[in-house]
Amino acid sequence: MQTQRVRRAAIVAAALILTSAAAADEGMWLLNKPPIQALKERYGFEPTPAWLEHVQKSCVRFGGGGSASVVSADGLVMTNHHVGSDDIEKLSTPEHNLLETGFYARTREEELPCKDLEVQILWSTEDVTQRVQSAAAPGASPAEANAARRRRIAEIEKESQDATGLKSDVVTLYHGARYHLYRYRRFTDVRLVMAPEQAIAFYGGDNDNFEYPRFDLDVSFFRIYENGKPLHPEHYLKWSGTGAAEGDLNFIVGHPARTQRQYTVDHLKFLRDVSYPVILQRLWRREVQLLSFSARSEENARIATGDLYGAQNSRKAFTGILAGLHDPQIMTAKVSAEKALRVAVDANPEFHAQWGDAWDRVSEAQRKHREHYLRYSALERRREVIRSDLYRIARHLVFLAEEKDKPNAERLEEYQEAALDTLYLRLFSPAPIYDELEMDRITSGLSYLAETAGGDDPLLVRMLAGQSPRGRAEQLVSGTKLKDVEVRKRLAAGGTQAIAESTDPMIRFAADLAPEIRRLRKLYEDEIESVERQNYARIAAAQFAVQGENLAPDATGTLRLSFGAVRGYVESGRPVPAFTTFAGLYQRHQERGGKPPFALPQRWLDRKARLKPDAPFNFVSTADIIGGNSGSPTINRAGEVIGIVFDGNLQGLVWDIAYTDEQARAVCLDARAIIEALRNVYDADPLADELVGGGR
Amino acid sequence: MQTQRVRRAAIVAAALILTSAAAADEGMWLLNKPPIQALKERYGFEPTPAWLEHVQKSCVRFGGGGSASVVSADGLVMTNHHVGSDDIEKLSTPEHNLLETGFYARTREEELPCKDLEVQILWSTEDVTQRVQSAAAPGASPAEANAARRRRIAEIEKESQDATGLKSDVVTLYHGARYHLYRYRRFTDVRLVMAPEQAIAFYGGDNDNFEYPRFDLDVSFFRIYENGKPLHPEHYLKWSGTGAAEGDLNFIVGHPARTQRQYTVDHLKFLRDVSYPVILQRLWRREVQLLSFSARSEENARIATGDLYGAQNSRKAFTGILAGLHDPQIMTAKVSAEKALRVAVDANPEFHAQWGDAWDRVSEAQRKHREHYLRYSALERRREVIRSDLYRIARHLVFLAEEKDKPNAERLEEYQEAALDTLYLRLFSPAPIYDELEMDRITSGLSYLAETAGGDDPLLVRMLAGQSPRGRAEQLVSGTKLKDVEVRKRLAAGGTQAIAESTDPMIRFAADLAPEIRRLRKLYEDEIESVERQNYARIAAAQFAVQGENLAPDATGTLRLSFGAVRGYVESGRPVPAFTTFAGLYQRHQERGGKPPFALPQRWLDRKARLKPDAPFNFVSTADIIGGNSGSPTINRAGEVIGIVFDGNLQGLVWDIAYTDEQARAVCLDARAIIEALRNVYDADPLADELVGGGR
Repeated sequence: MQTQRVRRAAIVAAALILTSAAAADEGMWLLNKPPIQALKERYGFEPTPAWLEHVQKSCVRFGGGGSASVVSADGLVMTNHHVGSDDIEKLSTPEHNLLETGFYARTREEELPCKDLEVQILWSTEDVTQRVQSAAAPGASPAEANAARRRRIAEIEKESQDATGLKSDVVTLYHGARYHLYRYRRFTDVRLVMAPEQAIAFYGGDNDNFEYPRFDLDVSFFRIYENGKPLHPEHYLKWSGTGAAEGDLNFIVGHPARTQRQYTVDHLKFLRDVSYPVILQRLWRREVQLLSFSARSEENARIATGDLYGAQNSRKAFTGILAGLHDPQIMTAKVSAEKALRVAVDANPEFHAQWGDAWDRVSEAQRKHREHYLRYSALERRREVIRSDLYRIARHLVFLAEEKDKPNAERLEEYQEAALDTLYLRLFSPAPIYDELEMDRITSGLSYLAETAGGDDPLLVRMLAGQSPRGRAEQLVSGTKLKDVEVRKRLAAGGTQAIAESTDPMIRFAADLAPEIRRLRKLYEDEIESVERQNYARIAAAQFAVQGENLAPDATGTLRLSFGAVRGYVESGRPVPAFTTFAGLYQRHQERGGKPPFALPQRWLDRKARLKPDAPFNFVSTADIIGGNSGSPTINRAGEVIGIVFDGNLQGLVWDIAYTDEQARAVCLDARAIIEALRNVYDADPLADELVGGGR
Repeated sequence: MQTQRVRRAAIVAAALILTSAAAADEGMWLLNKPPIQALKERYGFEPTPAWLEHVQKSCVRFGGGGSASVVSADGLVMTNHHVGSDDIEKLSTPEHNLLETGFYARTREEELPCKDLEVQILWSTEDVTQRVQSAAAPGASPAEANAARRRRIAEIEKESQDATGLKSDVVTLYHGARYHLYRYRRFTDVRLVMAPEQAIAFYGGDNDNFEYPRFDLDVSFFRIYENGKPLHPEHYLKWSGTGAAEGDLNFIVGHPARTQRQYTVDHLKFLRDVSYPVILQRLWRREVQLLSFSARSEENARIATGDLYGAQNSRKAFTGILAGLHDPQIMTAKVSAEKALRVAVDANPEFHAQWGDAWDRVSEAQRKHREHYLRYSALERRREVIRSDLYRIARHLVFLAEEKDKPNAERLEEYQEAALDTLYLRLFSPAPIYDELEMDRITSGLSYLAETAGGDDPLLVRMLAGQSPRGRAEQLVSGTKLKDVEVRKRLAAGGTQAIAESTDPMIRFAADLAPEIRRLRKLYEDEIESVERQNYARIAAAQFAVQGENLAPDATGTLRLSFGAVRGYVESGRPVPAFTTFAGLYQRHQERGGKPPFALPQRWLDRKARLKPDAPFNFVSTADIIGGNSGSPTINRAGEVIGIVFDGNLQGLVWDIAYTDEQARAVCLDARAIIEALRNVYDADPLADELVGGGR
């Protein structure tokens, strides 16, 4: 079945890629470069600068990488339950598992301060392409040019931060063709207001994840405080009085993390043949280990909830994208589009001279990447395999000490001045750390390195220090003092000398690994990233020259505007309506025997009669989203909330590499369902009133 | 915790390896070379030839690779539930899921004929080492010598089969130092008599698998028929009237599949760094896929039960063995033992000249093996990744046609005359085949090949034929006619011409793959297996010369005798008693809230009061076992049944590579618990009477 869908989707995608014009609802657009023309042509709507500013300043970047929005005059923030769940988990104990029971603060005083949550609002942006690109001397090697641009970016960020007091990030767009400076307001006093039970927020669990029809109350509410009082924001989104209807134009505004639509064919093949298989191997492995860990006791299950959810969610997402990469028709479309552009470039001698070899340079970088990917990704950054809180703290302390001795512009970017406040918040977080889970995570990471590098690998032998992976993990976790926040603060303050003198086993472990991590990072930046950046900038320039600039950049974890229509679709010959209802929820509960993950919380069973059976629950939209968009508000032409995005369907997983709207959809929780549940299931009329009335 | 245990265990193992004498209850012994001396010295027992013959002829090889025994004068056969579960599954339907409900035939007429089950009893053995080894001309290359021995083995088997009518297999012992001819009586009319619910047979599920204390009623009963009547065997095991007590000598007689205790250090490193990580990657991957498949519906869960159980069981076993290989002390002991033997060999010029370089030759073969393992193991034999029934049928038909045109001695061993009856039984089995599961299996296999070989691999591209993995799987499964047994028979009868003319897509798919499989098989046999065999024979000869012949060969899936004592152990400072009780079962049920996999079948809850709380349920023994021993009878000095082995504990997983008896144990179901449950839970007094009374 799946294949059929994806295949037809691919044909549409191919058509889109080849024509290049945004003939569909494609694109995660910059708010300072919105898709005016497409909106006018397709929906007769033209957003004003005021509309765009209002929406921008009502949207929130939530924690490490989620989306959210301000939805009341008293600083109420709405996001998904699954985006807030990390913070909800940190507020839980064995006695009060808020993921299981849900939570509702009936008064301001009952609102629970989060342990280490930071939210940000994008306040202004500025195009700094010229300043960044001019940093590289003509004729510089890719590595030199990359380093020069990095230094310039650090200067720009520091200068902006000093001048405005706002957190300042330079964002690389079109993989290097454009650089924009983003300035954010930061808020670190954020309190939990309301969360439903995970059983209804994530109804259907891993089984229904990325599926549609769907019945998830995937929402949670927090409140921003400033100086101990609720924030009274300049901008917030009002609640729609009417909600959405089939065919309605809607916008999704949030922080899509990463897409790969502009990648060359060889770069996509690197993902298909190297990166994603490796990532999936790690996810399958870890999922099984976490299931075993969780099965051992209720408490194990509780403390591993986040890890397990994350592993399962990523596994399902990468499975879908990899299936797309193995669909011959998608790849054929990519090959054709690339060929068409190269033919056009080669047909013009000037273009050919300027950009003709850019694709080959990217291919060379991918060959290099293949050689180093396994080890680099295992030890460094997003996919690292030792996913232990204590190890990460130790690693940051070791690197921080070394980096702080350098001039700001020479540091690794995550230790530059512009990033330090956010880093300290995490580093000195009082969030609970669980020995058993830490041991399991480190055992898993060390075993993975042993399995992939071989038992005689010198680095591994040093890391294990004569122990088995499990023995070493026990030694590190039981020996370290880093659970004590004061110990961390002393080490951070003590700099390189304190690190050098520390006998803490986790610090010594991290310090021993650091040179290899630095070596791999430098190799990646100098020989892969710099080449990619230089040549993707050239490819984008070629594309702008041949096809015009009406093209949204690949997602970068920063604020974007997507648009689309509320619209059902046809699957296996049967229509899938755009909306689901409360009646559908209870029907699914019955069909699956009420067994987990289809069990309903008791109060949902008790309050069934109070809920309108035909009230809308979830709906789908053609708006273009990807991971990271979770928690984004879905708004109407008036900028009012009609829902909140929490997922895409399976057919939408290929959006990572190509947009199609035949069946692929964003999945939203309807704003009306939120009010219906708050009033009738959770007895939370004050919260519902705050949403509907905008607060006060 | 685990590490501590394994580490101490390793020290013991090291001591054993170095002294080489069987100072403990070590060894899976040949019944024609029993451990007389150890039994006399340690337990004051000397088995007579009659005792050995009686035991041998009462033991049963069950299906593809399990153990069992004849336990009544009416041909009743006892094995584990998890050994019989494949056959129980084949007798189930969506309406009557015997794994869920259990089954008991109150009359002979109600006994259910199995779809394609074959059981064998070892009837005689003969040492044919001289005949096999003399087949290779002096100075022949390893590959030539291997081929010559293969031809000779085929001749010996054919000759024996023609002369005796018994199924005849030549077994390679000590990895090539000895060859024995085994002759079996075959039985193919086998009927299901009784099986408890899987919920009690596999109580605790994957969580408790390989754990102790334990509470599993892991038993099932079948009956051998001959000419439509129950078999009245010459030999069967009587039921013990008293059962076992702490410290009692006991024997376990069954078919341990494979051990690697005689492997060289480099060969173990090949397992540690190449083979087992690859196997585990496949198992993690497949387990997650099967969990997703099973979650989609009750029927999916039912038809995937066997696949999922198999994946989880293997995953837990390989995890344990790999942890052992990564325990520095186990590997240190192996290194020391190998060094000690090599020093002794090198100290004697004659020994040195004869065997001195054998270890290096094995190392060379392992280097070759590393290069080819991933692809070879993915496409050929035990670990193949396309685990589809329909594909296997097609593959056998394709190979069978080609092989049958060759002289018997030139054929691949699984198509030689001695193997054909068993092959036909499987090939023409009416056992159900499920489209959805087949598609999932083939999708999984094809995706795996794509993930590991890369999307542009020419073989993969040919296998996919322009489809995605899922699309190709759907095309093959919906297009093939091989579900029809008559179609298979016609193709088998039609030989190469029928295969060549067949347009069945699965046949074409298998025929297209066959040359690559042959190439890989030949490469493995000529460059790896032949070198291993030649040089392990030399290492064994060296070991016999230096340390004597009092050494059991590594397990080979053939009948072996182990001995040991019923004995508890100490774990984390706390004693683990040898026996568990029915009271313990109900206590565990309560502690884990009665949730799956700790839920009890309703009749176990209803009949609780009828069961003696302190009656023994499971017990542990120091007897040396490994996978494949499941279902082996545990017997006393009198040769009476005191239990049935169904597992080893976690500490026993390292028995694959080294024996220790500090904590490692075989886990048995007590014979008294079987009777207690049959009478009081299953109202199966006639069956209990047949066991206790021996039938009739």
